[in-house]
Amino acid sequence: MLRLYDFADSGNGYKARLLLALLKRAYDYVEVDILAGESRTPEFLASNPNGRIPVLELEAGVYLAESNAIQWYLAEGTKFLPSERLARAQVLQWLFFEQYSHEPYIAVVRHWVHTGVADARPDLAERRQRGVAALAVMERHLASRSFFIGERYTIADIALYAYTHVAPEGGFELAPYPALRAWLERVRVQPGHVPITWRPA
Amino acid sequence: MLRLYDFADSGNGYKARLLLALLKRAYDYVEVDILAGESRTPEFLASNPNGRIPVLELEAGVYLAESNAIQWYLAEGTKFLPSERLARAQVLQWLFFEQYSHEPYIAVVRHWVHTGVADARPDLAERRQRGVAALAVMERHLASRSFFIGERYTIADIALYAYTHVAPEGGFELAPYPALRAWLERVRVQPGHVPITWRPA
Repeated sequence: MLRLYDFADSGNGYKARLLLALLKRAYDYVEVDILAGESRTPEFLASNPNGRIPVLELEAGVYLAESNAIQWYLAEGTKFLPSERLARAQVLQWLFFEQYSHEPYIAVVRHWVHTGVADARPDLAERRQRGVAALAVMERHLASRSFFIGERYTIADIALYAYTHVAPEGGFELAPYPALRAWLERVRVQPGHVPITWRPA
Repeated sequence: MLRLYDFADSGNGYKARLLLALLKRAYDYVEVDILAGESRTPEFLASNPNGRIPVLELEAGVYLAESNAIQWYLAEGTKFLPSERLARAQVLQWLFFEQYSHEPYIAVVRHWVHTGVADARPDLAERRQRGVAALAVMERHLASRSFFIGERYTIADIALYAYTHVAPEGGFELAPYPALRAWLERVRVQPGHVPITWRPA
């Protein structure tokens, strides 16, 4: 049985939870309170030396970290990951865009707002500016496509949906991005979709 | 013929250059002066809406961005990317570690030093601290392995080598990390290895 180590408020964890729900996969869910240091204990570091959730335990003692690597592993052989070499590389392009040019700004600012430290951050304005730039890149790409890889809903969409749909919690306005907002709605109405607050019973 | 849009000082571009050299692949090389804004022109943005190098043109008008997606595309079917599902996901785990927990600290601080703006950055100390944390994660992982994915030299090693071996240019000391330094040397002596300063004639 798969086991997911996760934190409720995490959009990175939500990527795994959403994909597992879409795939109708059963799994054990273990809540790790990252705000209380539970992802930095010796036990947790043995599963991921980088001390971050989510971590997926594939079988006893075999761990996989990094939300987008977890998504790739789970989606292999399903409709959420294309089989053609170029399309697969394009999925990766957007997964790396998400982790490098989107998450450090949109997710991190949201986290700062949630934990009350945003105003104390010297780089808040720059992070907001870069988050806005990431949204503009997405808007441009989505102006002529239904999903990130053409007309197919893939893990690239899941990865980018995770923190974009809650970007307003970090103070990011989505009103200027009509193509992006239409895409968010297309993702939200996919069969089997679950919200970020959902977790297994 | 493949065409690589790249910038000489970039470790992200070096990942592609090193892998292409190891694979003995011929390609056109196009220098893009990112410091002069050449990666933000309308022409360049048509190849990568995120305005970043490296970009690999696979055939006329077909572009792939993000250094680690480029590596994945080029390495598919070669010894630099394993064929087993778990090992492939582990390669991705370390590629995402590199882009999220390593490059924004070790590469960015080096870039700031090279361009003379490091001392003006309010988040310099925090970035250095996080870079040191990334090196410690690598040291821990490499203490019991020759390469990141066990005993095999893969694109995970190339990705992490690119900026780690020049980390001292950003003020990072490598002396405290003996396993990491031994790994750097193992990478450096691989047949066909080229240095970061190398580019095709």
